[in-house]
Amino acid sequence: MIAGPVEQIFLGDDRIDHLPGYARGFAYGDGVFETMRVHRGTLPWWGVHFTRLANGLARLRIPVPDVGAMERALAELFADGADGAAKLIVSRGGIGRGYAPDVDALPLWRVSRHEIPPLPRPDGLVLRWCDTRLALQPALAGLKHCNRLEHVVARGEWSDPGIDEGLLRSIDGFVVCGTSANLFVLHGDRWATPRVDRCGIAGTCRAWLLSETGAAETRIDPAELETADAILLCNAVRGILPVARLEARAWAPHPAVADLRRRLARAHPAFDQEMA
Amino acid sequence: MIAGPVEQIFLGDDRIDHLPGYARGFAYGDGVFETMRVHRGTLPWWGVHFTRLANGLARLRIPVPDVGAMERALAELFADGADGAAKLIVSRGGIGRGYAPDVDALPLWRVSRHEIPPLPRPDGLVLRWCDTRLALQPALAGLKHCNRLEHVVARGEWSDPGIDEGLLRSIDGFVVCGTSANLFVLHGDRWATPRVDRCGIAGTCRAWLLSETGAAETRIDPAELETADAILLCNAVRGILPVARLEARAWAPHPAVADLRRRLARAHPAFDQEMA
Repeated sequence: MIAGPVEQIFLGDDRIDHLPGYARGFAYGDGVFETMRVHRGTLPWWGVHFTRLANGLARLRIPVPDVGAMERALAELFADGADGAAKLIVSRGGIGRGYAPDVDALPLWRVSRHEIPPLPRPDGLVLRWCDTRLALQPALAGLKHCNRLEHVVARGEWSDPGIDEGLLRSIDGFVVCGTSANLFVLHGDRWATPRVDRCGIAGTCRAWLLSETGAAETRIDPAELETADAILLCNAVRGILPVARLEARAWAPHPAVADLRRRLARAHPAFDQEMA
Repeated sequence: MIAGPVEQIFLGDDRIDHLPGYARGFAYGDGVFETMRVHRGTLPWWGVHFTRLANGLARLRIPVPDVGAMERALAELFADGADGAAKLIVSRGGIGRGYAPDVDALPLWRVSRHEIPPLPRPDGLVLRWCDTRLALQPALAGLKHCNRLEHVVARGEWSDPGIDEGLLRSIDGFVVCGTSANLFVLHGDRWATPRVDRCGIAGTCRAWLLSETGAAETRIDPAELETADAILLCNAVRGILPVARLEARAWAPHPAVADLRRRLARAHPAFDQEMA
């Protein structure tokens, strides 16, 4: 049971009751978003989420909402001190029809509160390859922007509850990510993760893992997953997710993954709670 | 002055007061749209717009709203018999967070009414090249979907009112379209237009011109615009737009463009009115 409002919507600093019909987020997906793990009403990684959000907004030339207003709105949603996930969408304001952006328009933004359903297989995900390929678009790559039809179409490829996630390749055949997670690949004692310079999202848990493991940011061929000693998925809501199987390839639990999960648990109290 | 409501919003067949905050159109741009010329309260090309809309929704597996409900909503917006433009957005319904599409969810859709501002240079547009390139994504190419950040970013490249439109190239360097128009190129008596199988939108006025001119759908190199005898832009709201200049290249008015404008005027009463 969630007590209190499950969303708040703002235009600039002003709370408003509804999304306006002319919202450019609705017309064009003209915005960026963050999905964040909430631990006892707090956002342990708010700083890195805010930094990424601000960078994304700067690249799209959308003004950044007042940081205090965002923090207050998120805190109010979780004033009961619960665990969960928070989503923050910041979209471009302006009332006009047509693509021309008003780079001075007050941003239209929304915070919402969500439950985290239990993972069906916490000890290791079952993955498939998606047929949908990610287009190469350096101008938008890395951003957690709201143009997500590729991910929607990819996630729509399967409804089998026995499959937990799908891996996406780029148009030119390299592995990029899961539909809602980044990917890390282990060979020996060397971690690697796909570059996000042409497609894909620069995830916050990915950033933590990069600094923690010194992983190489490279192009990864699908064949390199077959030969990997372990692979894992990660995102800011779920943390590190071990992978048990990708199509016919199976992996036993790997101590390096377990070690990273323990280190993440020390860095983020929500994941510590899960390890307990 | 617009009499009456300027928008109506529906969930399935039911009129609703506001966009819900959880709208997937707002979160992911998960929908398609049509922008249509209205002539004396009617939509002369409704049939082709509806067909394209239904095809786009089928490709994204979004249920098609009741055609009668859409027609009634559009007619109500223009019950005063005015001229203008109508916009119809049909987005995927469903309340869940996460990319997984509910392919059975009732669609969330909106119609809105807009004025058509006069063209600054009706005798010939002034164009620029955009730096923003269009990614190659065959799975979404041709669709008038709501993931339009590329067009927003491209249209944001200039604010000089002396520039009317920007031409977009694909990532691999071929000419595709204007930010809100399709492109046709004349060499001798042969028209050509960029294919929209990898990026770009299959416009309704483009379809009319294809059938009227027998234009070739090809890959077009930017250098072919330099050598062209004429180029034109087109869309469903503006009809056929002659081009006077692209960067340093200038064109005199061409009789073949004028002829096509006359033929379009006979096919669509709004453009007949403009020619009068």
